[in-house]
Amino acid sequence: MPVTASPDVLEKLVSLCKRRGFIFQSSEIYGGTGSVWDYGPLGVELKKNLKDRWWHAMVRARDDIEGLDAAILMHPRVWEASGHVATFTDPLVDCRNCKKRFRADDPKIKGTPGTPDAQCPACGMKGTLSEPRLFNLMFKTYMGPVEDSASIVYLRPETAQGIYVNFLNVQQSTRQKVPFGIAQIGKAFRNEITPGNFIFRTREFEQMEMQFFVEPGTDMHWFEYWKEQRLNWHKSLGLAAERLEFHQHSKEELAHYARAAFDIQFDFGGTLGFQEIEGVHNRGDFDLSRHQEYSGKKLEYFDQPNNKRFLPFVVETSVGADRTTLAVLVNAFREESVEGEDEGRTVLGIHPSLAPIKAGVFPLVKKDGMPEFAEKLTAELRQRFPVFYDESGAIGRRYRRQDEVGTPYCITVDGQTMEDGTVTIRDRDTLQQERVAADHVARIIQARILT
Amino acid sequence: MPVTASPDVLEKLVSLCKRRGFIFQSSEIYGGTGSVWDYGPLGVELKKNLKDRWWHAMVRARDDIEGLDAAILMHPRVWEASGHVATFTDPLVDCRNCKKRFRADDPKIKGTPGTPDAQCPACGMKGTLSEPRLFNLMFKTYMGPVEDSASIVYLRPETAQGIYVNFLNVQQSTRQKVPFGIAQIGKAFRNEITPGNFIFRTREFEQMEMQFFVEPGTDMHWFEYWKEQRLNWHKSLGLAAERLEFHQHSKEELAHYARAAFDIQFDFGGTLGFQEIEGVHNRGDFDLSRHQEYSGKKLEYFDQPNNKRFLPFVVETSVGADRTTLAVLVNAFREESVEGEDEGRTVLGIHPSLAPIKAGVFPLVKKDGMPEFAEKLTAELRQRFPVFYDESGAIGRRYRRQDEVGTPYCITVDGQTMEDGTVTIRDRDTLQQERVAADHVARIIQARILT
Repeated sequence: MPVTASPDVLEKLVSLCKRRGFIFQSSEIYGGTGSVWDYGPLGVELKKNLKDRWWHAMVRARDDIEGLDAAILMHPRVWEASGHVATFTDPLVDCRNCKKRFRADDPKIKGTPGTPDAQCPACGMKGTLSEPRLFNLMFKTYMGPVEDSASIVYLRPETAQGIYVNFLNVQQSTRQKVPFGIAQIGKAFRNEITPGNFIFRTREFEQMEMQFFVEPGTDMHWFEYWKEQRLNWHKSLGLAAERLEFHQHSKEELAHYARAAFDIQFDFGGTLGFQEIEGVHNRGDFDLSRHQEYSGKKLEYFDQPNNKRFLPFVVETSVGADRTTLAVLVNAFREESVEGEDEGRTVLGIHPSLAPIKAGVFPLVKKDGMPEFAEKLTAELRQRFPVFYDESGAIGRRYRRQDEVGTPYCITVDGQTMEDGTVTIRDRDTLQQERVAADHVARIIQARILT
Repeated sequence: MPVTASPDVLEKLVSLCKRRGFIFQSSEIYGGTGSVWDYGPLGVELKKNLKDRWWHAMVRARDDIEGLDAAILMHPRVWEASGHVATFTDPLVDCRNCKKRFRADDPKIKGTPGTPDAQCPACGMKGTLSEPRLFNLMFKTYMGPVEDSASIVYLRPETAQGIYVNFLNVQQSTRQKVPFGIAQIGKAFRNEITPGNFIFRTREFEQMEMQFFVEPGTDMHWFEYWKEQRLNWHKSLGLAAERLEFHQHSKEELAHYARAAFDIQFDFGGTLGFQEIEGVHNRGDFDLSRHQEYSGKKLEYFDQPNNKRFLPFVVETSVGADRTTLAVLVNAFREESVEGEDEGRTVLGIHPSLAPIKAGVFPLVKKDGMPEFAEKLTAELRQRFPVFYDESGAIGRRYRRQDEVGTPYCITVDGQTMEDGTVTIRDRDTLQQERVAADHVARIIQARILT
């Protein structure tokens, strides 16, 4: 029944997401903001469900990870210590003629920038492109009334540093013992030169990061542990196992701070193909030792039973909330023919725990007390989970509308309901209908949408 | 039993919040970032519970409000349309001698700035203070590789504008009919000159805003409706009724766009006293008409049954998540004497639905199988809600530790548990203990922490 996903799934998704209220272009009425997106009514629920599942798995369901919500604006020395001021850069070239800027590796540039042969991809002039210069990707602003070098602050390009600088605050206030982790969900900002592919690479994005602090020597054990844990989490979202794979960073790819690194990649199909949605990194003691050096404050952990002090190593798991949302959508999107019908259907086969709307509720016809019964049931269910009441159009069309936004269950109030108080529950994926007492619907669906 | 809250409650709270992991100064190891704070393990849970309660009440439990999560970075024209570029300013004066800046109304300034008599509060020189100049409170940055006037973007100073510019996108994708609302939780930034009072006024903060779109003429009806709804919501968090009051904006206080405005104020005690935690505003069609004008895009609503088009009026409810978190903490803080004990106790009487930890689980002694039983119970409860296992120190001390962070229930595994499988549940506020079967604990506490 499923039709193979065509290469233009992303294009179809952009359209569906706008039409049905998942994702809109930011400031669209003003022509949009470069590679920034707004989550609409269904998108915000989908992303919130995803973040809540991560928070539950990483923080609430464990006794060895603590939550944190550090601010976006941090002391500027943080980014000197982390290396971002010096090295978080892209090489750019300028055209002296048309004043446009490009990434030095822009494939549209012909020839070597800085030489007389190089041709500007915008104005077409030859020999006008400068040598590459480094351009920092952090957004910069000024705090306080005076705009000078002493008041520069950056929008954080990652949430991780908020965890490192709070390491001892968290450890001491919670009395946690190494090994333990600190987890955080929050916005980060990168002034990317070539963002794109919908919400895959954006200038404003949300990360879900966890830093696990361990005793040196045990780091590779924990690295392997977290690789497996995190891959399993993505599978638990319903992402197809065959679309997920590990990509090990080669020596050349490894960041200067990393002792080992694996990406979890998801196959987005089309021209994107396999791309990183999460990174698992063994960062050693790079971050804590740098913050110790730059702040002048000791960040060592005191291991009381063994009466020794050490700087823990860090195993990081860093997942993009927007990328994973996109992976969930791509993974869920399918166009199907339906047996016995001319028209096919578009389905988002989203995991019930992530679906923005858990159930549609429909009166079969707009009479005989069915709307009243259905509205009452809707009001009752809405106190427990998001539902959508719909009485307009043919029942088949109403099913299709919910299929398209990933609603896993549709409840129909019909003639028999008015006689015996039963309703049908129709399953989005199997199309099977079962008849149950209306009183039991809340409990039945609640059990199925739990993770 | 309760002792009257002393005027230094805020000071005591700052200390408790750091020591127990509610709130830390941002980038503390670097000397802090001006008026920016990080939420620690308990603070992030408290604030998340607060936001989830707002989201449930305003979005999920209603059929006439849709959620949204618009980006922080918006098109710069948005802030011209909203009036922020022109009028979101504070008057500042400069000292020509020491180069420091002050708010023109700084009480430390002696004399009238700009006159020879005025004395600089920093260097003490006379006649060196400039006339007041307007200073915009929006944080400014640049998007893209070139820093020029065409690439200026602002960090949003409020979330509301993200709702207005998406009004038709949301309405059309959800098929909502006026009256309906759009709700959003998100960060906003204001480069305040005099922030302070812990998390009361900060440069980075989180808002929970809802814009309700209504037909002109019905706006005062909805204004009254929302005033009442929102006041009741604050009461439902456990905020004392006598600490909550309305403050009506006088003609002089009314913003240029407002037809009517009431603040919901909370009594923070001490020198702060009654202060705004939420604003309910009748904004008329100011915002939609301005965005229509500046974007050149029609933002009218089409009322199909009556075949007419109109620009809706907006009733806004805007609550500060950080301020309300502070109100919850101030409201909950009490120091009590305990009958028959020399030492008193510090209690955070936080509403069970908001408490970061729902239950402490303690083995009475570290032997006879009690720790194993308590650990097993802890693991079972942790799948449902946040719990804390503690086996160290006297049982009284363990109760005190949980009282201080607002844990509503403490479960103790004792000798009788090992005989008949029952445990005690101790109530934080009444100090009453009841004995129940361990198998029932999850269900009992779950029912009590539901809102």
